[in-house]
Amino acid sequence: MITIRPVGFDTEVTPDLDLPAVLAEHLRPVLSPGDVVVVTSKIVSKWLGLYAAADVDRAELVLQQSHAVVAERATADSITRVVHASAGPVMAGAGIDASNSADERLLLLPDDADSVARRLRCELARSLARPTDFAVVLSDTSGRAWRAGLTDFALGAAGLNPLDDLRGLADTTGRDLAVTIRNIADEVASAADLVKGKVDRVPVAVLSGLGAFVTDEDGAGVAGLVRTGPTDWFGLGRAEAVRAALGVAPGTPLAAEVGVESVLEEPLQDRVARALRVALAAGDAVDAELPAAAGDAVVIRLRGADPVALGRVWARLEVALAGERLGCSARRDGGDDLLVEVT
Amino acid sequence: MITIRPVGFDTEVTPDLDLPAVLAEHLRPVLSPGDVVVVTSKIVSKWLGLYAAADVDRAELVLQQSHAVVAERATADSITRVVHASAGPVMAGAGIDASNSADERLLLLPDDADSVARRLRCELARSLARPTDFAVVLSDTSGRAWRAGLTDFALGAAGLNPLDDLRGLADTTGRDLAVTIRNIADEVASAADLVKGKVDRVPVAVLSGLGAFVTDEDGAGVAGLVRTGPTDWFGLGRAEAVRAALGVAPGTPLAAEVGVESVLEEPLQDRVARALRVALAAGDAVDAELPAAAGDAVVIRLRGADPVALGRVWARLEVALAGERLGCSARRDGGDDLLVEVT
Repeated sequence: MITIRPVGFDTEVTPDLDLPAVLAEHLRPVLSPGDVVVVTSKIVSKWLGLYAAADVDRAELVLQQSHAVVAERATADSITRVVHASAGPVMAGAGIDASNSADERLLLLPDDADSVARRLRCELARSLARPTDFAVVLSDTSGRAWRAGLTDFALGAAGLNPLDDLRGLADTTGRDLAVTIRNIADEVASAADLVKGKVDRVPVAVLSGLGAFVTDEDGAGVAGLVRTGPTDWFGLGRAEAVRAALGVAPGTPLAAEVGVESVLEEPLQDRVARALRVALAAGDAVDAELPAAAGDAVVIRLRGADPVALGRVWARLEVALAGERLGCSARRDGGDDLLVEVT
Repeated sequence: MITIRPVGFDTEVTPDLDLPAVLAEHLRPVLSPGDVVVVTSKIVSKWLGLYAAADVDRAELVLQQSHAVVAERATADSITRVVHASAGPVMAGAGIDASNSADERLLLLPDDADSVARRLRCELARSLARPTDFAVVLSDTSGRAWRAGLTDFALGAAGLNPLDDLRGLADTTGRDLAVTIRNIADEVASAADLVKGKVDRVPVAVLSGLGAFVTDEDGAGVAGLVRTGPTDWFGLGRAEAVRAALGVAPGTPLAAEVGVESVLEEPLQDRVARALRVALAAGDAVDAELPAAAGDAVVIRLRGADPVALGRVWARLEVALAGERLGCSARRDGGDDLLVEVT
């Protein structure tokens, strides 16, 4: 049996607070050997004083706190970016947090949450005057691709085996199990969120019954659970992958200038205009004429002295339109111009 | 406090078994009003007899059990596809399961897991001779984009509010919370997995302490938690988005013929050859000559009577190479040919 106990406290966390001592005070009555202490990253960020400058632009800050932009969408007054955050995970807005802090400043995630978890574990043990026979997990909240709502995941950990590798273990019928590596750390963070809530002052949960995953050593933490890089199947969003292949990488000034795809229902004319700007971004000597919308048919006239450049822009436009989930067909107009009709 | 209790049983599940009656027998001593019963989808699939025909090709079966292919990679002897499964979620292999079943047959997921959860809830209540004052969740296992390992999620549910919508609630400092909708159903499934394991016969877990999310009515279930469609940021993988924009959609015979990207380290020559086949897939009247590898430089000679077609293939090749994370530059060779050098 596993139990998840909420640990609430009312103390406002500041860099001046001895957070491990305060946590220890609340944990002393409930903590047993083999327990996992899950701490919301927000109070850790407050403790570490990880506040952004008050006058910084939020979109700019997200880029600063990122290794790379994975996907981006704009609305009239803001831009949302899914990024590979400096803090490690791929998540919306680099995990920058505005809610529930005592002032208007934006809270940042620690760059090395595993190291923070190790420090917290060590200082908690000292405050409690006990061995490090418990694990510490820092949790944060994020969406999951193709799922509604947010779930918690492990941002940092110390003293926890984050993965349960069942590969090669015989299953109950004696055959090999299919490849199965359970992500215990993320499941622990999700379980803890069920008692923590967001509006109550419950920034900490204690899980008992997971002693099999708790280790004496701090271990490698959870930074290694992040999957990014050249082999990442979803290293760029659908629209961003197409634009990047046309030379317009997400997160760049050029991407913003060309226009970042909105998830809102946009007029056809706007989507076509954006595709055309992307198609022409390579600087081919081709003039393009986009008619004012007249009925449903949108026909783009491409004109240029160099037929190779004309062919290039035609193909690039076809690709960019496909990136906008639009098709097209093209025909010569009798002269040298190319008429591309959006379908 | 939340408790998660494992419910183990040794009975082999078959379509002839009265699964609700057997489950009820095990649940009777532990189940209280407001509890959530989490059942592994595998035993439900066995109960429903959802076995594939013995002679079916697994890759073909995955396509049959899918609405659409999101991403795909091949190795020498198999192909892995992330798909929008008929069962609802986006997941690898359409959730088809080979492990831990009593024979060699492949187990399929139910098409409407919410309806199965409702049926199970109703029949459990009848077997237990109690009101439906508990929830039922069917759980399944899947990867999470950008994370190592697998975590459980809710495939179906009855009697559970799957989302906890905190938007607009004042936070503890009186300001509005940022947009926050917690996915309770998935967190419940993840929490339950912590006691279930894969090699032990623990296909069921009972969570207590979540009564606030348990409803008298069955409710809408969790099918609505799946996020796909035109506005899906990750509706196609990075490589697949580029190829689809060039007319080579994943999951089609053309994609398999052109070659499905492998995550293995492939020789440069193979990646270039694949990009070239994709570039020529539109049927332009252009001949392309790929030299046998000689040193590091790979130069493709494009030749054709129609310069517009030449420009088209050049641009398509540039895009396809970018999809392979390769760059290129092009030059005329003095005549009409175009030399594209891969960089």
